[in-house]
Amino acid sequence: MTLIKDLVVRDIRFPTSKHLDGSDAVNVDPDYSAAYVILKTDHPQNLEGHGLTFTCGRGTEVVCAAVNALRKQVVGKSLEEIRAEMRNFWRGLTCESQIRWLGPEKGALHLATAAIVNAVWDLIAKAEAKPLWRLLVEMPPEDLVACIDFRYITDALTPEDALAILRANEPTKAARMAELEARGYPAYTTSAGWLGYSDEKMRRLCREAIAAGWNHFKIKVGRDLADDIRRCRIIREEIGWERKLMTDANQYWDVGEAIAHMKQLAEFKPWWIEEPTSPDDVLGHAAVARALAPLGIGVATGEHCQNRVVFKQLMQAGAIRFCQIDSCRLGGVNEVLSVYLMAKKFGVPVCPHAGGVGLCEYVQHLQMWDYCCVSASKQDRLVEFVDHLHEHFLDPVRVRDGHYLPPTQPGYSIQMKPASLDEYEFPHGKAWK
Amino acid sequence: MTLIKDLVVRDIRFPTSKHLDGSDAVNVDPDYSAAYVILKTDHPQNLEGHGLTFTCGRGTEVVCAAVNALRKQVVGKSLEEIRAEMRNFWRGLTCESQIRWLGPEKGALHLATAAIVNAVWDLIAKAEAKPLWRLLVEMPPEDLVACIDFRYITDALTPEDALAILRANEPTKAARMAELEARGYPAYTTSAGWLGYSDEKMRRLCREAIAAGWNHFKIKVGRDLADDIRRCRIIREEIGWERKLMTDANQYWDVGEAIAHMKQLAEFKPWWIEEPTSPDDVLGHAAVARALAPLGIGVATGEHCQNRVVFKQLMQAGAIRFCQIDSCRLGGVNEVLSVYLMAKKFGVPVCPHAGGVGLCEYVQHLQMWDYCCVSASKQDRLVEFVDHLHEHFLDPVRVRDGHYLPPTQPGYSIQMKPASLDEYEFPHGKAWK
Repeated sequence: MTLIKDLVVRDIRFPTSKHLDGSDAVNVDPDYSAAYVILKTDHPQNLEGHGLTFTCGRGTEVVCAAVNALRKQVVGKSLEEIRAEMRNFWRGLTCESQIRWLGPEKGALHLATAAIVNAVWDLIAKAEAKPLWRLLVEMPPEDLVACIDFRYITDALTPEDALAILRANEPTKAARMAELEARGYPAYTTSAGWLGYSDEKMRRLCREAIAAGWNHFKIKVGRDLADDIRRCRIIREEIGWERKLMTDANQYWDVGEAIAHMKQLAEFKPWWIEEPTSPDDVLGHAAVARALAPLGIGVATGEHCQNRVVFKQLMQAGAIRFCQIDSCRLGGVNEVLSVYLMAKKFGVPVCPHAGGVGLCEYVQHLQMWDYCCVSASKQDRLVEFVDHLHEHFLDPVRVRDGHYLPPTQPGYSIQMKPASLDEYEFPHGKAWK
Repeated sequence: MTLIKDLVVRDIRFPTSKHLDGSDAVNVDPDYSAAYVILKTDHPQNLEGHGLTFTCGRGTEVVCAAVNALRKQVVGKSLEEIRAEMRNFWRGLTCESQIRWLGPEKGALHLATAAIVNAVWDLIAKAEAKPLWRLLVEMPPEDLVACIDFRYITDALTPEDALAILRANEPTKAARMAELEARGYPAYTTSAGWLGYSDEKMRRLCREAIAAGWNHFKIKVGRDLADDIRRCRIIREEIGWERKLMTDANQYWDVGEAIAHMKQLAEFKPWWIEEPTSPDDVLGHAAVARALAPLGIGVATGEHCQNRVVFKQLMQAGAIRFCQIDSCRLGGVNEVLSVYLMAKKFGVPVCPHAGGVGLCEYVQHLQMWDYCCVSASKQDRLVEFVDHLHEHFLDPVRVRDGHYLPPTQPGYSIQMKPASLDEYEFPHGKAWK
């Protein structure tokens, strides 16, 4: 028995707004941050589970308060009892009878749930001495399905559906694991296209990215049409027409504006428009998707999609051609699994949201599990990559020729270096003095 | 000039779970609570703005943390500058560039926004020495429209639409104000139907309610079909078939379960089924609505509807026959106005969610404004009433013959007695020792 005897939450903030890294039409000055959870155990090797939720600076303290509100749902439990009742454990976090009122399953509380749930999975993977993706791939289909709360999605995906998908891929998954280990998983880069960067910086970053083997490029759009046209032209000049260009409006538009604006950018042949409008607007995304389909532009969204219920509807309504799950906006691994399985059923490729801090480290595991066990395909699938802040992690992502290489160390790759945690802790770390 | 010089937030909790007041299929043991905001000013009469967000006990401290995170958006501003730029003031709360990541416009942060925004309106109404409903009714249509953030709803309601609705009702609104003052606004009661009450208590409360003039009764359902049938039968025995019966599942079911369960309860002729499934499931509610329409059962929802974008879709999809706005789940008065105006455009009656603590005090103002300025109709419209905790307010609701009487004191009727705030403050008030 391994007992979770304490939970520590830390408010970690990186002052990224200084250089407008990560700037876009809505997030104009993010300080990439995290509500960072450590689960302490009585394990003889002092195993700890680490998990974080990505945030943008101010307000991180609210997510930390939410983590503390959920403390009783995890401290005092053993790893064994959590594993034996994973679905109930998850529902204990999302449906705590009084706290549920603040959601349910959305906003600060759900972000906190994600940090805790991901820390539990990190702990489980460490206890089994496997990287998380391998742990998931090697779990029997029945055990994976037992982790998922199907509440509110049975009209789209039943436990039987999920089991059938996983079982169908069992016989061939070993071959895909071997292929991943040989070649990695394809990625695309957002590092060149931040809204706050100068044209010259954009050109330089494009050239560096092409030299490094990248073939997909994402650019931020939204605020100003003339400016967007100019910047799309620059990117196309640099990357040519064979490489793929994606656009990202970060929720800047109303539905009608999104359609009108993207019609003007259609000449640059964007593969997708990401977050054209409010993340809550399923029907709005469907309207944008219908209007842009004849132009060959797909709709992508998900980094702000609050839970599986909204993803379910995006798929039911035909509103997205690309599903961009977020590893810690959804309520951690358990809920992410359910969205991948729905995406498989609806035939929608998943291209996870990454960047921020720790998101690349997280999503590589999820997408590799998807490839082995769920979609069994790389068609139209890429993992976002942004080259920020990896130096703070003990087991950072390794990217080669535009591909993520499979993690090999035990856990979920999300543990930060102790010195980084100390330096960037808000407000008393050295970086904030 | 009146300067807002400080914001105080207090965690106020009433131990209502002791007697299972408010118990239902999902909220099994709520302690009715509030994140309570006081805006202090330099006004010569020491005017204060009071506002609260209703919560259910544990987790209230998270909303208090969220209020503090938004403090800079209001402290140091003058009432005059806020009034001159109401739309921008509201967007400053919901779109703070870093904090927005935690929503946007949902969960703990949006609940916090509501408490602050409602406190601002309380302050404005007190400064004008009017009850809020009268302040709103007497505002020129242009000024009301200038309070609303139309972002993400222009595909359903434009500022021009809103102005046209308000202007059309201007010539006749005085007559409706006079009528309200003479007769009040019709209500329905939920006090009899809580899931945790015994059959005998239910019967007694029904009889008392009929004697007090009530004609609409709501009962909690969801957990157990046989039990629901028994309890519906008891209620119908007590209230007869002329009075209206409403049912409320508090999100307990998946879509298929909701349809199957309500088909079994159709014999009791429920007027509506409230919250049949996840509050995030627009398409699910639409499916339930389609299935139950032939049985004469309407779908009602809204107390957990996170913002105007979700209400917009519920109306676009034909998913609700009754719109149950919540005065402090939506981001306060400003956002509530936009939902009433959309409801008018879509022909959906608004029956506000109330009960909890302070919700009755809030919504009476909103519904009276709606009657005078927006819907100009009482057809199929009722305000929920629950007879709990009114004794803690300085200006509690007054109900006579099943009607709310229009508030007459300045403000939003939400200010609690200082002794109640002290006694129920968590964790150090006397009630929690």
